[in-house]
Amino acid sequence: MLINCDMGESYGIWEMGQDKTIMPFVDMANIACGMHASDPSVMLTTVRYAKEHGVRIGAHPGYPDLQGFGRRFIEMPAEELKAYVIYQLGALNGICQSEDVAISYVKPHGALYNAMMKKDDIYIALLEAIASYDIKLPLMIMAVPDHLHYTTLAEQYGVELIFEAFVDRTYLSNGRLTPRSLPGACHDDLDVICAQAMKLISDQSITSIDGEEVNIKADTLCIHGDGKLAADIAKTLRLQITEYTESIICK
Amino acid sequence: MLINCDMGESYGIWEMGQDKTIMPFVDMANIACGMHASDPSVMLTTVRYAKEHGVRIGAHPGYPDLQGFGRRFIEMPAEELKAYVIYQLGALNGICQSEDVAISYVKPHGALYNAMMKKDDIYIALLEAIASYDIKLPLMIMAVPDHLHYTTLAEQYGVELIFEAFVDRTYLSNGRLTPRSLPGACHDDLDVICAQAMKLISDQSITSIDGEEVNIKADTLCIHGDGKLAADIAKTLRLQITEYTESIICK
Amino acid sequence: MLINCDMGESYGIWEMGQDKTIMPFVDMANIACGMHASDPSVMLTTVRYAKEHGVRIGAHPGYPDLQGFGRRFIEMPAEELKAYVIYQLGALNGICQSEDVAISYVKPHGALYNAMMKKDDIYIALLEAIASYDIKLPLMIMAVPDHLHYTTLAEQYGVELIFEAFVDRTYLSNGRLTPRSLPGACHDDLDVICAQAMKLISDQSITSIDGEEVNIKADTLCIHGDGKLAADIAKTLRLQITEYTESIICK
Amino acid sequence: MLINCDMGESYGIWEMGQDKTIMPFVDMANIACGMHASDPSVMLTTVRYAKEHGVRIGAHPGYPDLQGFGRRFIEMPAEELKAYVIYQLGALNGICQSEDVAISYVKPHGALYNAMMKKDDIYIALLEAIASYDIKLPLMIMAVPDHLHYTTLAEQYGVELIFEAFVDRTYLSNGRLTPRSLPGACHDDLDVICAQAMKLISDQSITSIDGEEVNIKADTLCIHGDGKLAADIAKTLRLQITEYTESIICK
Repeated sequence: MLINCDMGESYGIWEMGQDKTIMPFVDMANIACGMHASDPSVMLTTVRYAKEHGVRIGAHPGYPDLQGFGRRFIEMPAEELKAYVIYQLGALNGICQSEDVAISYVKPHGALYNAMMKKDDIYIALLEAIASYDIKLPLMIMAVPDHLHYTTLAEQYGVELIFEAFVDRTYLSNGRLTPRSLPGACHDDLDVICAQAMKLISDQSITSIDGEEVNIKADTLCIHGDGKLAADIAKTLRLQITEYTESIICK
Repeated sequence: MLINCDMGESYGIWEMGQDKTIMPFVDMANIACGMHASDPSVMLTTVRYAKEHGVRIGAHPGYPDLQGFGRRFIEMPAEELKAYVIYQLGALNGICQSEDVAISYVKPHGALYNAMMKKDDIYIALLEAIASYDIKLPLMIMAVPDHLHYTTLAEQYGVELIFEAFVDRTYLSNGRLTPRSLPGACHDDLDVICAQAMKLISDQSITSIDGEEVNIKADTLCIHGDGKLAADIAKTLRLQITEYTESIICK
Repeated sequence: MLINCDMGESYGIWEMGQDKTIMPFVDMANIACGMHASDPSVMLTTVRYAKEHGVRIGAHPGYPDLQGFGRRFIEMPAEELKAYVIYQLGALNGICQSEDVAISYVKPHGALYNAMMKKDDIYIALLEAIASYDIKLPLMIMAVPDHLHYTTLAEQYGVELIFEAFVDRTYLSNGRLTPRSLPGACHDDLDVICAQAMKLISDQSITSIDGEEVNIKADTLCIHGDGKLAADIAKTLRLQITEYTESIICK
Repeated sequence: MLINCDMGESYGIWEMGQDKTIMPFVDMANIACGMHASDPSVMLTTVRYAKEHGVRIGAHPGYPDLQGFGRRFIEMPAEELKAYVIYQLGALNGICQSEDVAISYVKPHGALYNAMMKKDDIYIALLEAIASYDIKLPLMIMAVPDHLHYTTLAEQYGVELIFEAFVDRTYLSNGRLTPRSLPGACHDDLDVICAQAMKLISDQSITSIDGEEVNIKADTLCIHGDGKLAADIAKTLRLQITEYTESIICK
């Protein structure tokens, strides 16, 4: 089970996240590509950190909206969205190339991520963008009970999927996240967060906010880099996953 | 002798240039990368035209300044400038990759081009950017009598140069362009433009605005795509170059 | 019956519209405020034209989206939208103030205009923005058969309305415009356009695309400044309205 | 002696400064206008704080460069610069107007401030911008020994000046700030900062970094809102200025 975290979300003089602190404990860094956050200098610095720690680099494309941090849905034709996504993949990969590394997966950001999970046309636009840019790049989407729908479409376009689950967010009984606008959307207790993580690892399930067991089969766990607990979550999860893996191997 | 032209300088709904009309007559398309002009959709469309006509694609990076069309000099540290340039090379190459083509050279735009020709630190930043991104990409600079200065530096960084001359602009006797702020900076007569072009081809020289012969050894001729005569210049030059080349071969 | 036209929609080096040609023939210039089009220099130039021709200046605020020309709907909270609108009213009024004129009405642009006509929360956000900025500024909205809905809300906020009709667009039988995505959305014949205008003036109605009479009571007619016929429409309408008005007076 | 502080320098999701903590202790809030920092929502929030604490609001216009936080000099014609400045004055004043307050002075930001102090054409462009927008708004500039040069020009344009001194920066013996690129440019000791402030108040002078006395006659002291000590400086200065003023009065 891999840990992924959004990184490189500073912009110009404005800093965000704790990239330096968290990078040593994660496996995958989702790096913003300059449209909803980040700029060429921030991207370069972040790629260098990731490389230094042997962390896999993922492109984290978003809507072109710095002021809204890519969290505002913007209506646009599929062709235009594809061009935006390919532009961002290329830009981050250019920065990577100058450091002799490369992007190895794609995870959409914010409103684009949400739209991908809700609207097939947007999900397909992303699959097509990846297929035309580099079909070997897997797309990271949310691990959901109805994953078959997404898998089937991805196979049509020849794109591999990576499924991620969230450890610091609560789930509804339908296997989707509790919206941030509702109370209890986020976990704020480290023990609870780690428990959700370990349950995802050992049982491939979570307990929803109303107490139901929901099957969630994830390849990676997402942690958010801007919370107060972010560094603690990263360190503790890293340790627990390592211990768990060793205990399995010892058996 | 190759013809190059700036292309893909529209932005969103705003159109510029006559890309469709001119593309069939040029050899090299310098495509804007989204910082001073162009956007992902415009870039994609322009790359497709270029591919359709077998035209070589060059990255045309500029300062991040849409409002000023990259014509305003922006002071920034060399490290930051390099990151901006690499970002733009990657972004355009990403769009190219989705169409199974690739960028094959780099020509800076506007204030960045002028700064490159005037300030060694900026010229070096560009050489370093290319060297770290892809050392096989040549850099297009202005053909000037004192080219040795530029060649020597480029060799230090292992970057190849392409020299371009201008057919629709007049030259000072020092081999530099007459500034646009002065009268007579531009030629507006097709015959004069073609004469300057043919003289560059056959004699490797131009006649300066004050009547002096100046040696200018160019690999490519630049035409500006936004002038009224642009399409006529492109067609006529194409024809004359072809005729000239055939006449040489026949001898 | 007044003629209004969107103006000042150039951006940086990119030109749009025929402001100089059309300004002499209109009564009201809706000037973009720098978020979906225009920039401070374009705004200043446009305000000067308008002042020179004694044309009333209206603020034409839009979504913050140059690349999409304000035609892409962007989801945002009402409080944020209000701040964006007030910012734009103030910015244009600042430019006006430096020329000793002032804005005298507000007409939202593109996706914001459409959203205002469809979603009450957005319409109310606009009413509140105007009420808090300057309650004496009327809001221009689309003249529709069900105008009572809009009038009632506007009265609650103390904001006056101006109703506009379109002369170069066709209408559905429900009194709304034929979407641009459908065939026949635009009139492209000057006679047809003028006939629709004169019918709006004399009968306060239009004939819908499927032949029905629809009552449309408008205070002003909108012409689009970027069409090929724009200047002709402006001149002809100006003449016909003047003739009609004189004929009425003579009676 | 008034205390001024830059405020409203957050942007979208990115926070900067400690506006809430510092506002109660200052007299003048220099509020960014959306070109180098801030956005309409941030401006509205900041104006509300200022109003709540009875703090005077100044427009803090900058170069249009979010990524560079207005710290990169951008070459542009005087006419264009004036339009940018007027746009920003109007935009902030629009936000103020919606809260029934108004801007009461102008202080340029970053590279624009530095350029104003170095280049007469830029200083004059600012004077002209203010004169055409609202001649009653004073312009805040740096208190320097050679202030006569600035005063003479300002009088020609009819614009009043406010002179500010810096308490957390060191001075050269020519009365200008030690550049940030040099060691010792900033004071990092609260006592030293307060001593410099009190000397400016009681003696109208400072001790330069190389030990010379330099006459600096200031109307207001600037504190920077983004330093670690910012809140402490604000509180302590407020207290000391109040005590000093009372001691004077008591005499």
